[in-house]
Amino acid sequence: MNALVYLDPGKIAWKEVPRPTVLEPTDALVKITKTTICGTDLHILKGDVPAVTPGRILGHEGVGIIEEVGSAVRSFKQGDHVLISCITSCGKCEYCKKQLYAHCEDGGWKLGHLIDGTQAEYVRIPHADNSLYAIPPGADEEALVMLSDIFPTGFEIGVLYGAVKPGDVVAIVGAGPVGMASLLTAKFFSPSKIIMIDLDRSRLDLAEKLGATHVIDSSGGDVVQKVLDQTKDGVDVAIEAVGIPQTFDICQHIVRPGGHIANVGVHGKSVNFELQKLWIRNITVTTGLVNTNTTPMLIKTVESNKLTPLDLITHRYTFDQFMEAYAVFGNAAVENALKVIISRT
Amino acid sequence: MNALVYLDPGKIAWKEVPRPTVLEPTDALVKITKTTICGTDLHILKGDVPAVTPGRILGHEGVGIIEEVGSAVRSFKQGDHVLISCITSCGKCEYCKKQLYAHCEDGGWKLGHLIDGTQAEYVRIPHADNSLYAIPPGADEEALVMLSDIFPTGFEIGVLYGAVKPGDVVAIVGAGPVGMASLLTAKFFSPSKIIMIDLDRSRLDLAEKLGATHVIDSSGGDVVQKVLDQTKDGVDVAIEAVGIPQTFDICQHIVRPGGHIANVGVHGKSVNFELQKLWIRNITVTTGLVNTNTTPMLIKTVESNKLTPLDLITHRYTFDQFMEAYAVFGNAAVENALKVIISRT
Repeated sequence: MNALVYLDPGKIAWKEVPRPTVLEPTDALVKITKTTICGTDLHILKGDVPAVTPGRILGHEGVGIIEEVGSAVRSFKQGDHVLISCITSCGKCEYCKKQLYAHCEDGGWKLGHLIDGTQAEYVRIPHADNSLYAIPPGADEEALVMLSDIFPTGFEIGVLYGAVKPGDVVAIVGAGPVGMASLLTAKFFSPSKIIMIDLDRSRLDLAEKLGATHVIDSSGGDVVQKVLDQTKDGVDVAIEAVGIPQTFDICQHIVRPGGHIANVGVHGKSVNFELQKLWIRNITVTTGLVNTNTTPMLIKTVESNKLTPLDLITHRYTFDQFMEAYAVFGNAAVENALKVIISRT
Repeated sequence: MNALVYLDPGKIAWKEVPRPTVLEPTDALVKITKTTICGTDLHILKGDVPAVTPGRILGHEGVGIIEEVGSAVRSFKQGDHVLISCITSCGKCEYCKKQLYAHCEDGGWKLGHLIDGTQAEYVRIPHADNSLYAIPPGADEEALVMLSDIFPTGFEIGVLYGAVKPGDVVAIVGAGPVGMASLLTAKFFSPSKIIMIDLDRSRLDLAEKLGATHVIDSSGGDVVQKVLDQTKDGVDVAIEAVGIPQTFDICQHIVRPGGHIANVGVHGKSVNFELQKLWIRNITVTTGLVNTNTTPMLIKTVESNKLTPLDLITHRYTFDQFMEAYAVFGNAAVENALKVIISRT
């Protein structure tokens, strides 16, 4: 089969590799029909994720058809149409039983990281009963592949951890795919204002179309004051969806007493946390890798049209154009790319 | 009357001052029978709290008898025996209606800070209906004066914000009065282990008597490893009850995935928050000034002997010995002082 293989920092190839097989009784082999590229894949490509070794097939998002299941798989059979979760989980360990699937003792984020991933014609999915979700008949594959990672991430780690409530003022720092997923899922809870902050004008324009009540172009500076001008004494919820000290800093300066900072961004450096000001403000800061425990819930919201993930798709390719898809997504600002879909055919 | 007056950094005096009067219809005048000294008072004495200006009567903890009430006070009358909360609150603003009394728009921590406090023969209490609590007949005044501040602080900001649950492993960094209050109130929720960490051997000995299952003398170094040795993969709840970067640092290195860091300490400096490690660990960090919304609950636990605040009292004085009480409490390590009671007679 063909797959997108990480070769060395800066180097990937769409090339022929051996087709995976069922190794454990709990495995499923899935024939990928659609996949996508995540910002994390770009970090891997740059060499920022040393756990990813040369030869690894990338990708942790995808939908497809089950080709084969191991003898212990109970919920799925050959021919089933499935959504692959970016998190695989055993369902049996202490963390799984707390729905902290991200910290499964035999799972977590493994696909396209510690084991071969979904940017391939076929992928082996461990613990298939817990790591796959049935796609309802007639559902849109492109919408659902957005639920492998970015929508549960924006929803669980941004909106739910941030405890967005009706009437709240919410600020989202970073209008990338996950920030947009936070925006669309924050709307479930009817906040009074959603303030979107980004450097990229075209992303802010899209955020406005998708329901942001205010947008702030952070390239103009003085972001904190601009946010405070829209509020009485700061925001109820600040969602950090970038992952650099500057954006965390905005969050800690705009959160009101009793408010929440939900950190979704993947950070490479520590941040200066101003406890000398914040100890007294009764704030809550949360962090996290997605658990994908809300995936069944999100599938229902897509089915009922409460959630429209297609709004984030800007580019479409086929497997033989995989290298072009990476080139465009890797230059997202210039290309106005948000999410790219790569289909088998 | 006589009161303990802040004169200048490093300088206080027990001296004659005018007796306060009812200024607003919602005020009560309370004749203090017992008060105590808080670590915060020592910070003020050092000049660390610039909002406290020369001439201010210190103190935000106390019990007493109502001498007079304003015309709008409904819940109390002359002669009532009351506990004074360190937080005064109007009960009417948005923050009060969320029980965030610490952030009351016409209250919060004012006593002994922005208005004259409780280390005096008489004190004026604003918003008396919301800021005082009736002392049940026969209750021990010394036990209840511990509920003005340190017990609700340790309980609300340490134990409740930290979300201590049955079976949890809890670490408390700092065995001062508030750390001890967290220890005693954490026991309400039956954690499996309570690990107490401090530099002071006599405080650790007391912590063991009060129910700590493990104590770690942090003067020996390597605290993080010593905590991890007692756990599978870190603690469920780390309560920071000191307020310096080093103790926050211990907390962020011992918390397990999905765990909580409850910051109770009053910080004077920012801290280095290791988001590059913690973004993925699904942790929650909370901060806060006490709301005293649990005071009625805590009074019931004292009445039913589920909580024994007297265990923290090490020294007793009368008003005319106030300066001696400050001298001893200000030298707590040498004097083995934890909480000192100062009584009218």
